[in-house]
Formats: sequence, C-alpha cells, structure tokens
Amino acid sequence: MQFCMVPLNLLRANGYASYLNTGVWASKAIKEAQIIGNTKVIASSEDKKFSYIPRTYPISGDSDYLHITSNNTIYGTQMKIFPISRIPVVCDMSSDIFSRKIDCKKFDLIYAGAQKNMGPAGCTLVVVKESILGKTARTIPSMLDYKVHIKGDSMYNTPPVFPIYVSLLTMRWLKKNGGIDWIDKINNQKAGVLYAEIDRNNLFTGATEKDSRSMMNVTFLLNKPELEPEFDKMWKEAGISGLRGHRDVGGYRASLYNALPLESVNVLVNVMKEFEKKF
Amino acid sequence: MQFCMVPLNLLRANGYASYLNTGVWASKAIKEAQIIGNTKVIASSEDKKFSYIPRTYPISGDSDYLHITSNNTIYGTQMKIFPISRIPVVCDMSSDIFSRKIDCKKFDLIYAGAQKNMGPAGCTLVVVKESILGKTARTIPSMLDYKVHIKGDSMYNTPPVFPIYVSLLTMRWLKKNGGIDWIDKINNQKAGVLYAEIDRNNLFTGATEKDSRSMMNVTFLLNKPELEPEFDKMWKEAGISGLRGHRDVGGYRASLYNALPLESVNVLVNVMKEFEKKF
Repeated sequence: MQFCMVPLNLLRANGYASYLNTGVWASKAIKEAQIIGNTKVIASSEDKKFSYIPRTYPISGDSDYLHITSNNTIYGTQMKIFPISRIPVVCDMSSDIFSRKIDCKKFDLIYAGAQKNMGPAGCTLVVVKESILGKTARTIPSMLDYKVHIKGDSMYNTPPVFPIYVSLLTMRWLKKNGGIDWIDKINNQKAGVLYAEIDRNNLFTGATEKDSRSMMNVTFLLNKPELEPEFDKMWKEAGISGLRGHRDVGGYRASLYNALPLESVNVLVNVMKEFEKKF
Repeated sequence: MQFCMVPLNLLRANGYASYLNTGVWASKAIKEAQIIGNTKVIASSEDKKFSYIPRTYPISGDSDYLHITSNNTIYGTQMKIFPISRIPVVCDMSSDIFSRKIDCKKFDLIYAGAQKNMGPAGCTLVVVKESILGKTARTIPSMLDYKVHIKGDSMYNTPPVFPIYVSLLTMRWLKKNGGIDWIDKINNQKAGVLYAEIDRNNLFTGATEKDSRSMMNVTFLLNKPELEPEFDKMWKEAGISGLRGHRDVGGYRASLYNALPLESVNVLVNVMKEFEKKF
C-alpha cells in the first residue's frame, strides 16, 4: 500500500520522484509510483541482475523525493551507506528494520511491513516528518492520506489490533535483551559466520558483490549446479527449510531475520562443511 | 479502504455513482467517492437524524452503481428490503454480515470489515462479480485494484494471516452450529426480546422507526433523561458495558453481534424491568 501512498502524499502533479532500482521490490515501488505521477530511475543495478547496490548516483534538487530500498530480500543485497540529500529521502525498510543501527535523521519517511522483524503480517510501520506532507495539492482518499492517520493517532480506522499488539511484544523482547545494539551484534555474527563459510568453502560462491552483502538474506550459489540435489538432501535432513533461492535467481538464500538464532546458522554451516568433505 | 476502492474500480471518469445516505458510514462512503468522481445521493434519511431507512428512491439506469449500507451501527437502523436494479448494487455489510439470511444474487459487490461478526480487526471480506470490473479505463494502483487481488487469489500481497485464520475459525463455529439459519433465529430472538421490552416498558422508547429497526444495534431512549444516572448505575452493576449511545445520538445502544448470547440480552431486559419497578 505504501508503494502508492508515498507518491500520493509526496509527488506533485508537475513534479517527479527519483527512485533507486535495486531489485524486485524497488521495481514494484517504481511501477506503482508511475501510476500516480512522473518518476525517474536515477540508478539501477539491473545490469548485473541486482547483485550490487549502486555506489554513486546524482540526486537532483528539483525532485520531489528520493525512494530507496534498504534491503533486497530476493537478491541478498543491502545498503550500507545511505544518501544525504536536500530532498526528502523515503526508505522501504520492510526487510531489515530493527535489525541494525541506522541514523534515523537521514530519512524523512521510513516504512516497513511488520512481517519480517516486527510481528505478524497485517500492519505497517510508517515514520514520517510532518513537514514534508501536504505539498502536493492533491486530494487524497482519507485512508491513503498520512495526515489523516497522524491526526487520528493511527486510529482513524479500526486498527489491526492483534498484529500491532504482537509487534509491541516483539519490541519489548528486543528492548529487554539489549535493543538494537544487541540484535545488530547477533545479526552480524550470524551473517559473518555464514559468509565466512561461503568464502572459505570451494564448493560455494556468494551471489552478490561483497560490499553489498545483506545481513538479512544471504544468497549463494553452488559452483557445480549438478550437485544441487545432493546438497538439497543434506540440508533438508538437517531440518533446514526454505533454503532454495527465489525462482528468479536460483541458487540458495538463507534468511536470517531477528527471530532466527545463531545456532540455526551453525547447523547450515556444518552441513556445508560436511558437503565439502563428501565432494 | 473499500470506500475509495469501490469508486476507483467501478466509477467511470464521466460517469456518476448513486448513494443511499443512511448514516455516518454511508456519509463517509459518499465523501470518499466524491474524491474519486461524481456522486449523487438518491435518498437520505438525514432529515430525521437517520432514524429510518428510505423506502422508495429512483435508481437511474445510467448510474455506474448504487451503494447501500445494510446496517447502520450508530443509529440502529437496518435495511430489510434490498433494491433490485439494472445497475450494479454495492453493499457495505460490515456490521451485519453473517447475521441473517440474505439473497446474495441481489448484490454485485459486497464488502465487510471482519471486526463485527467475522474475526479480529485487520482484514476485509470482498465478494465481487468479475463482470462489473475493468470498465472504468482508469489505471488503478495494484493494491487498490480488485482484479489484481482476484488474479493473486487474495495473496497479491502478504495477507494478514492471523485475522484471516481467526475468521476461518469463526466460520467453522457458525457452520458447525447450524449456519446462518441458526444465527439468524438467535439474532431475531435477541433483538425481539429487547425491542419487546422497549415497547412494553413506559420508561423507554425505541430510537428508530419500527420497520427500520436493526437486529444488530438496538437504540433506545429513556423517556425521562433526568433518570439516566440511575439507569446507568443499574446496568453497570449488572455487569453490562458500553450501553451508552454514540455521542452523536445520545440515549442507549445495545450491540447484539453474533458473539453475544441471548442470556446477556436477558440481563439487560431484567435491569429495565427492575428500573421500571423503582420509578
């Protein structure tokens, strides 16, 4: 829904929005924004199958906003450095919010679906600077108008109570254990252990450029694809599920969201080591 | 959300939509439709504070659709007879779906938020005839396009799994107990007992016209408003909560959704009888 709410609320009829195209979700955001108004893709990594985050890109000061996607689940890339810009920076953080320290001051609008690191599917977190709203002269349907939701204290409509409540419990769990500092460290450990094994083990190769590697979704390839059935058998026997990469990419993808403990990553690393011994 | 999705999907740029204005929710639906296109209120009961359902109204064949609200929670009115029309009939059944037998063939689009008779807040049921879609020539944002949701088997986006699952459990409970025939009978009993007491007891008056009385939300007034504090004390002591009418209407409102048993209605009726004895 945010894909259309962002342009509805921020994109002027004669203006244009700048988008960074770093994967499937970014592409969808662009497609939806194009329904509302003019867009410009200022950088894209589609040339190399979205295996990296574009490093430099021009940000025009006359653009209504810049939209970025902090983590790309399907390709396994993640933004490490966020742009500094005079125009509002909008970030889709659905797949890595509350997983690492970020400097919130760099963003004017952050949105994130609950279903990765927050709670059950069915609610979305939106953090927005009020000063960027109300500049489009567009009449926005109430349910799609951020100002209406702000005015209604996020209760303009009957809110989805259960997903919000479970998200609260997750936040309390996070806070009690040490907050973002704590989970950031664990997530770095989890991804670190797995990427180290991918780089060490001659049977595997990381699917993305090293400086764009995601801490949430680790994508990798088997150097001898003919061995995939053997590898699949081994990790399934070890109790791992859903390791197959997205059908658009192939290979493998380990999703290491906050709820996954380090022990689970170790199980996969051990399978990779055993697999190496066998072949 | 349906308030803007209905006109986005059904209202042509040069067309107009017909609306029946029977209360607060109908008024909101009209307001949101006006953002999308042209609307015409073909009948309204605002003249008598929405205390009745308009009986006759002209339905123009050149209108894109007719929008009605089957039950009006705040005023306590309910449509007993549904219009038969050549144009698509759209009905907001949020507050009385699955409470009584209806002839689904009379409707082209039915929508209902889960939170009254289905499950927890956070999902909405939409039943739509595919033949009425795709006629507006409007480009609709994907999340707001009924055709996109149909094509995606209601899983275009990550669905709100928990509210949907609990709604499934409610449907199973309803089916196991005898389905709509069973709950229709119970709801008639519940409302029947309460309206009978309102009509019998000289201290109370029903807030709506008799042929428009809602089986879900029974609204009534105390003939001597100065006795309200006494009455409030009595029903609160009996364990009843939320009986006060909506602030726009005053008086009292007993909501008898499917989950409320007949015994709870009897508690209120007994309080009314005791109150009569005292005054």
